[in-house]
Amino acid sequence: MQPFVLDARLAQDSVSIMKLGLCDLRLAKDSRWPWLILVPQRANVSEVFDLTPLDQAMLTFEQVTVGAALKKATGAEKINIAAIGNIVRQLHVHVVARVENDPNWPGPIWGFGQSVPYEEEALAAMKNRILEAFQ
Amino acid sequence: MQPFVLDARLAQDSVSIMKLGLCDLRLAKDSRWPWLILVPQRANVSEVFDLTPLDQAMLTFEQVTVGAALKKATGAEKINIAAIGNIVRQLHVHVVARVENDPNWPGPIWGFGQSVPYEEEALAAMKNRILEAFQ
Repeated sequence: MQPFVLDARLAQDSVSIMKLGLCDLRLAKDSRWPWLILVPQRANVSEVFDLTPLDQAMLTFEQVTVGAALKKATGAEKINIAAIGNIVRQLHVHVVARVENDPNWPGPIWGFGQSVPYEEEALAAMKNRILEAFQ
Repeated sequence: MQPFVLDARLAQDSVSIMKLGLCDLRLAKDSRWPWLILVPQRANVSEVFDLTPLDQAMLTFEQVTVGAALKKATGAEKINIAAIGNIVRQLHVHVVARVENDPNWPGPIWGFGQSVPYEEEALAAMKNRILEAFQ
């Protein structure tokens, strides 16, 4: 079996906050919205339907767990979950907390403006807030 | 149990092409891209994690079945799958076929421009193409 190697752009634009059963759970380096990315640790997978049925079930479980935790951590109005991948083809699922006064509400976050990096302390604080919501 | 009633905006902007085990499978009335919408037939559900675990598994199965069929029907470069719902809160999942020369590639389809209605024959043809891909 080919080893999983994280896509270079995902590696650059996000930081790992936890390894789940299937996915690397990552926080996007964009302070405009609490934005998590689940990356199934499987080589050569681009579409959800390229995963085995067991991995599909695992991914669903991890998406809903992460989505519910993110909602709890942020009090978001709506959680947006999406597998797009038109640019980065390695399968990854966005899980994003949206509120009514965020920079592009109610439009999508993808392709909107430029990312705004976190201050170091704010990044650590967001990471902790999310990890605590899993407990 | 409260009965499921399709959201008025979803009813207006898309047509049902098949009822699956959980979802009403609908085709968006926008000829710019082959755009399917899965609507779980459950009342008062806004987030994927509001569904029961069994319904979550059903939704996953229906998403991957529909995504793979849409890819087969269209020869798409990439399938985009997303549960956003910032405007229409009734849970619905977009499954969209994207190609490199479509009107907003590689950006997202949501919130982009105005929809372009199908001619009646083109709508019927797209519906048939998708139904045939399930066989």
